[in-house]
Amino acid sequence: MATITRTPVGIIGAGPAGLFLAHLLHRQGIETVILESRSRAEVEGTIRAGVLEQWVVDLMNQMGLGERMMREGHFHSGITLRFNGESHHIDMAELTGGKRVTVYAQHEVIRDLVAARLEDGGEILFGVSDVQLHGVETDQPSITFRRSPDGPVEELRCDFIAGCDGFHGPSRQTIPTAIRSEHQIVYPFGWLGILTSAPPSHPELIYAAHERGFALLSTRSPEVQRLYIQVDPKDDIANWSDARIWSELHTRLEDKSGWSLTEGPVFQKGIIAMRSFVCETMRHGRLFLAGDAAHIVPPTGAKGLNLAVADVLVLSRALTAFFKSNDGDGLAGYSAQCLRRIWKAERFSWYMTTMLHHNPNETSFEQRIHLADLDYVVHSRAAMTALAENYVGLPME
Amino acid sequence: MATITRTPVGIIGAGPAGLFLAHLLHRQGIETVILESRSRAEVEGTIRAGVLEQWVVDLMNQMGLGERMMREGHFHSGITLRFNGESHHIDMAELTGGKRVTVYAQHEVIRDLVAARLEDGGEILFGVSDVQLHGVETDQPSITFRRSPDGPVEELRCDFIAGCDGFHGPSRQTIPTAIRSEHQIVYPFGWLGILTSAPPSHPELIYAAHERGFALLSTRSPEVQRLYIQVDPKDDIANWSDARIWSELHTRLEDKSGWSLTEGPVFQKGIIAMRSFVCETMRHGRLFLAGDAAHIVPPTGAKGLNLAVADVLVLSRALTAFFKSNDGDGLAGYSAQCLRRIWKAERFSWYMTTMLHHNPNETSFEQRIHLADLDYVVHSRAAMTALAENYVGLPME
Repeated sequence: MATITRTPVGIIGAGPAGLFLAHLLHRQGIETVILESRSRAEVEGTIRAGVLEQWVVDLMNQMGLGERMMREGHFHSGITLRFNGESHHIDMAELTGGKRVTVYAQHEVIRDLVAARLEDGGEILFGVSDVQLHGVETDQPSITFRRSPDGPVEELRCDFIAGCDGFHGPSRQTIPTAIRSEHQIVYPFGWLGILTSAPPSHPELIYAAHERGFALLSTRSPEVQRLYIQVDPKDDIANWSDARIWSELHTRLEDKSGWSLTEGPVFQKGIIAMRSFVCETMRHGRLFLAGDAAHIVPPTGAKGLNLAVADVLVLSRALTAFFKSNDGDGLAGYSAQCLRRIWKAERFSWYMTTMLHHNPNETSFEQRIHLADLDYVVHSRAAMTALAENYVGLPME
Repeated sequence: MATITRTPVGIIGAGPAGLFLAHLLHRQGIETVILESRSRAEVEGTIRAGVLEQWVVDLMNQMGLGERMMREGHFHSGITLRFNGESHHIDMAELTGGKRVTVYAQHEVIRDLVAARLEDGGEILFGVSDVQLHGVETDQPSITFRRSPDGPVEELRCDFIAGCDGFHGPSRQTIPTAIRSEHQIVYPFGWLGILTSAPPSHPELIYAAHERGFALLSTRSPEVQRLYIQVDPKDDIANWSDARIWSELHTRLEDKSGWSLTEGPVFQKGIIAMRSFVCETMRHGRLFLAGDAAHIVPPTGAKGLNLAVADVLVLSRALTAFFKSNDGDGLAGYSAQCLRRIWKAERFSWYMTTMLHHNPNETSFEQRIHLADLDYVVHSRAAMTALAENYVGLPME
C-alpha cells in the first residue's frame, strides 16, 4: 500500500516558478508540497544569469525575500547597443520614469527562496524520481513519485497541480496533443558563455551586433565577469581556446572610442542553444503549467525568470480566489491571461535576438533590415522608449 | 549625323522623382530635359494611390505646386488598426506633435507637376524610345533616344544623368553588376485593388489584419472608394467576381462594433504583386538613381512616392552645390545619405507588411508574433508613437 499524503497544491519543480508559487500561496495561508527531481545542491548550483524586472524586485522585497538581492545585486539603469563600431547608450530609467533592472543571478534567487521556504516550514522534496501525474481532468488529481530511486512509490493527492518542471519535465506532456498546440523557433545560432576572474570592463551590459556575430558583456560581481559570443550551436567547446574566445570578444565588443575589454582567467565555459517556444494552452483540467514548462525565450531579451514569476503571480491570485471565495474565474482565465504577456515577451525576445544576431540563413535584405532597425532605434526616442519599457518589463496587471 | 543637344542634367523618367527633380533644379536656375518613354496621357492616367508625408506637402506648397492638392486632397490625422475583430485608432497627429498625412493620388501629383513644368517652359519629351545611357563614368555622359519609334537617333549630352526611370528602366542596368548589389524580398502575396463608386464608409484608412488575409480601406473622393484585399499574387482577376470581392471585404474589414462597409459599383479591379527592393549603390560616375529605379517598397507603409521625393531633394541640393560652388561633396555622399533614409523606410514598410498580412510560409510562431506585435503596438504609447512617426515621415534632414 503506497504512502498517501494530501496537499491543496502540488508543485512539480523547485525552479523560480515553483518556489515563487509556494511562497505566494503560503502568504495566503495555502500550503503546498514541492517535488524536485534534482538535489538541493544541483538546484542551487546551476549557474544561470538573471536580470530581474523592476516589478519582480518590488515583489521580492514585499515578500521579505529581497534582503540579499538588494545587498549583492547590481542595479542597471541603462544598456549600451553597439554596432558599426559605435556605441549608443539607452537610458532606460530616464525613458521609463525611473525603472531599472537588477542583475542578480537566478541561482542566487533560488538559494534565497529555498532557504526562506524551509525556514517557514515549507515542504520541498529534493531528489525525487518517477514523477507521474494522474487524473488532472478530475477533481482529485495526484502525483506519484519515489523519494529515492529504490524507495517505494508514494502518492501526493492534490486539489490542483502546478507544472513548474521546465521544458523537459513531465507536466506539459500530460496535456493531450489534441488540445495542446506548440509554437517554436529553433535559432541557427547559440551562445558561447564564459566566466572570467576580471574586474568589470564596463558598468552596464553591452549588446554588440557585429558582422562576425553577436556578443554580450555583463558583470557578475566586482571580481567576476560574464561574457558571451554567438557561435554555431552545434560547435564543440573544445574548438574554442581561451585565446580564440578573447580574440572574438575583442573584435566584436570593442568600438571606435578606444575602450578596451579587460581579460582574466576563464574558469567556466560552455555553449548553449537558443529557442523560442510557447505551449498553448497552459491549463488542462486541474493542471496549470508555469515558467519554462510552458514557454522558452532566447536569453537576449532577459525575460525568462520574469515570465515565470508573472505566471505564478497570476496563478497564486487565481488559486487564492478559488480557495477563499470559491471563485473559479481566475483559474478559467489563467492560460489566456498569461499568454497575452508571454507573447509580448516572446515578441520582444525574438526582436532583440533577430536584430542583434547574424543569421546566415537570412537574405541580405533581412540582414540590412536589422541594421536599419538598430540605426532607427538609437535615433528615435519613441523606438528607444519601446525597447526600454520592454526591457525593464511591461506593467504587470 | 545625329541631332545633338546639351543640358546640364538629363533626367530619364517623368514620374514623381524626375518631375520633382526638374522643378527643384529649375528653382535654382539649373535647366533639365526629361525623357519619358510613355505618352503624357499614359503618365497622367496611370491610377496610383498616394499618401504624402507632411514634409512633402510642405515642400509642394513652398514650391507653389500645392494649390490643387490643398483643395482636393484629404488630410488624415490618424489611421485605424483592426485585428481580432476590434478596432484601435492611432492618432498620428496627437502622437507626432501635429503631423498628418495627405491622401492625394500620385497621378494627380504628376498632373500638377507636368502642367507647372510645361508652363515654366521646361522640356519634357514624352513617348521617346530606344533610350540608352553612354559614358556615365566620364565627365561627358550622354543619352541617346528616338522621339518616335521610326525617328532618327538623337543625342542629349549632359553634365549629369538622373536615372528616374523606375524599376524596369535602363538606368540601373547601366551600373556594372560588380559594383551593384541588389537586396530584395518578393512577398508570397499581392493586393487585389478595386475602385468603387460609393460614399466613404469611414473617414480614415483602416488597416485590417485577418486570418483570411490583410484588407485596406481608403477613400479617394466623396464619390470614389479604394479598397484592397490580400490575395495570391499569381491569382487571375477573372477568378474574382465583384460579389466574391465584397464578401471578402466585409469579412476582413468589419469589426464587432456593428460598423459596416458601404458597397457600390466596381469600375476598376486588378492584382498587384509586392516586393521590397534596394539597389546599393545609387550612384555610378555621373549617373544618379532616384525613386523606384533604386528601391521598391510594398505599399503597406505608404512610402513609395515620399522616398522618391526625398532622393531628389538630396540630389538637387548636391547638384546645386556642384554647379554653384563647385562643391562635389554632396554628390559623393548622395548614395550613402539616401540609403540611410531608404533602409529605415524599407524597415517600416517590411514591418507593416509582415505584421498585417497572413503569410502561409511563416511558422505558427511567427504568425503569432505578428498578432502580439499588434496587441503591443495599440496598447503602448511608445510603440504607437514609433509607428506614427514613421507613417507621417521621419524628419527630412
